[in-house]
Amino acid sequence: MKSGPSSANIPRGFTFAATACGLKKKGLDLALLTSKTPASAAAVFTTNRVQAAPVRLSREHLHKSRHKIRAVIVNSGNANCCTGSPGLAASRQTAAKLSGLLGCKPHEVLVCSTGVIGVPLRVEKILAAEPQLVRSSSSDAAAFEQFTRAIMTTDTRPKWASAKLRIGGKQVRLLGCAKGSGMIAPNMATMLGFLATDAAISPPLLSRALRTIVARTFNAITVDGDTSTNDTVALLANGESGAKKITTEDGHYRSFLAALETVCRSLALSIVADGEGAQRVIEIEVRGAVSDRAANTIARTIAHSPLVKTAFAGADPNWGRILAAAGRAGILFDPDKIDIQLAGIRVCCRGREYPFNERVAHRKMLAEYVPIIVNLHAGPGVARVWTCDFTAEYVRINASYRT
Amino acid sequence: MKSGPSSANIPRGFTFAATACGLKKKGLDLALLTSKTPASAAAVFTTNRVQAAPVRLSREHLHKSRHKIRAVIVNSGNANCCTGSPGLAASRQTAAKLSGLLGCKPHEVLVCSTGVIGVPLRVEKILAAEPQLVRSSSSDAAAFEQFTRAIMTTDTRPKWASAKLRIGGKQVRLLGCAKGSGMIAPNMATMLGFLATDAAISPPLLSRALRTIVARTFNAITVDGDTSTNDTVALLANGESGAKKITTEDGHYRSFLAALETVCRSLALSIVADGEGAQRVIEIEVRGAVSDRAANTIARTIAHSPLVKTAFAGADPNWGRILAAAGRAGILFDPDKIDIQLAGIRVCCRGREYPFNERVAHRKMLAEYVPIIVNLHAGPGVARVWTCDFTAEYVRINASYRT
Repeated sequence: MKSGPSSANIPRGFTFAATACGLKKKGLDLALLTSKTPASAAAVFTTNRVQAAPVRLSREHLHKSRHKIRAVIVNSGNANCCTGSPGLAASRQTAAKLSGLLGCKPHEVLVCSTGVIGVPLRVEKILAAEPQLVRSSSSDAAAFEQFTRAIMTTDTRPKWASAKLRIGGKQVRLLGCAKGSGMIAPNMATMLGFLATDAAISPPLLSRALRTIVARTFNAITVDGDTSTNDTVALLANGESGAKKITTEDGHYRSFLAALETVCRSLALSIVADGEGAQRVIEIEVRGAVSDRAANTIARTIAHSPLVKTAFAGADPNWGRILAAAGRAGILFDPDKIDIQLAGIRVCCRGREYPFNERVAHRKMLAEYVPIIVNLHAGPGVARVWTCDFTAEYVRINASYRT
Repeated sequence: MKSGPSSANIPRGFTFAATACGLKKKGLDLALLTSKTPASAAAVFTTNRVQAAPVRLSREHLHKSRHKIRAVIVNSGNANCCTGSPGLAASRQTAAKLSGLLGCKPHEVLVCSTGVIGVPLRVEKILAAEPQLVRSSSSDAAAFEQFTRAIMTTDTRPKWASAKLRIGGKQVRLLGCAKGSGMIAPNMATMLGFLATDAAISPPLLSRALRTIVARTFNAITVDGDTSTNDTVALLANGESGAKKITTEDGHYRSFLAALETVCRSLALSIVADGEGAQRVIEIEVRGAVSDRAANTIARTIAHSPLVKTAFAGADPNWGRILAAAGRAGILFDPDKIDIQLAGIRVCCRGREYPFNERVAHRKMLAEYVPIIVNLHAGPGVARVWTCDFTAEYVRINASYRT
């Protein structure tokens, strides 16, 4: 693991806080991110038909505030999902009380929740903790570090990443953190990501940037194929660096996009590496498909195959399972043209085994990061997704009876 | 387990044989089913784009013979898949030699293989064993029992089922067996099913019957969502019962269809119950969808969810995971209308928890057969699929390095 964040990583004009309000049996479970001025905001939410109350409220607030946000409040320990109108009221109360304390509008607050679903949220615990949370907010690296811990559920470690760039001679900072361990952790926990930058950028461009990068990073990872009811990635840009505002897709925009990709990819891979029970990250690159979309479908089918994922748990160079998963993806291709590379070793050429040393392949597959390249030789389409291996420990974590 | 088959179960005019030809390190690995007269034949094959040589050859033979078949030869221990033109030649040699011994045309023989993929088939072992296999063919129940064992790979027990019906005063017998343990067992083994009946039925009707019933039985089960390159279900009807030939969709056809469904459902559920590492069968019924197709998509998404399947391993009444899996199936529905019953207990009403006794639910979920009913209250669509729970044992079986 890299060392913790330093104050040099914190974008200007943002503060962080965390506390233990009692939703979890023990440990930090309430986190706050605040911008001292209204920040341009963009967010992407779960595509699940079942959407938790905080997701519905945050969508509404983004719209109402015209994408200008002052704060994001996050609780772990309860997802506030399948909780009906009392659940939505609880999210509303959370935002309303916080806005009073910060002196902003309720719709300038985003609310996120993660944890068990179907259980009423004890919102009084959140409301009681909010004054102290606001008072203790700080731009210290330690406060950010506490924030990254307070949003964790089954994560075994906090996940954060940062980048710096220059825009017109001014230094701009980008800082992000995420939680998630399994696309859904036990009892319906969630993937959450929070990104803060002191760049100045208009809300439409910020939204475009976030969507572009999430597609290549957070949406290109999968642990178990299950999409949570609470998934949220939010990005706030408050302009406090003093750098020129980005309003068109110019060179500055592209620099910002590159920094955003660096941070989001790092966070996404941290989530996969911390996948429940995971021993290694598998990178699946599909080339030569008829289209990028076709390549993506095949790459995801391979990434979701329990047989592929269990073979990787045993570091077994069982390329037949990769080929068979590709074959059932519903995409037309000629199996007699397919080539497969596993951990840098060619194992299949034109649909047949290419002689390779199984012991060497096995040893290379014991690494923490193992690439697969599948080439269909049928067109220009490419895609890359990341997943982790599927171990007995995953089953142990997820099969235990809730207590 | 029920007791073994008796001679009363064997349809007239069929013989069976099995031997150990040396493809497996030990045990029976070659099986033969023969009809003394050409039988009407129907078969369904894997939808995987990657199709093994025997699948390609059997398709060709069915077409060439106009669906009149004398014999089915099956080897375990090697799937003869991803083996190029030598693989196809091996399947051809297998059929050619057998047809010489039986005195029929090569295209009156179907060939099936199951086992490891990407490894050349040592066809000389099969060819050498064929004469003895033909000589030892018998209509004894014991020969059929050996057949059911010779087609096994990681199956822990043989799977067979039978039915009798009367057509115009004549008794008709239907007998079937199957292998499969995991839709794909380790190293790309397969689901195979073989059905023999002494009913007389025209090939087009036989094919319609098989397709109708396979959709509701073998195609309604899933262990891990992986479709093999070798999946085959074949049905032979030789008319030796002397019963009137079925040529239209009359009452006799419907009786035959009912018997076929009984046998195929029994075999399909045996496969799920013998799923790698499985402790219990889960029946997932989705009601009230806008269409049967929508219901099926949701039922399958629930059946493939690792989080649902691991919750069942722990007998955890975690209905939130069922709801979340339904929500990501890509089908529109109103989550606030959904009802869920688990092991006969109402756990979710209109998208929210319905108070229930968790201990009682947990105890009921420890059964060998646990039903789930999901009602969307959105239309007339219904579907039912079966799967098994996902245990650490599944991972252990599939993650072990090949030896």
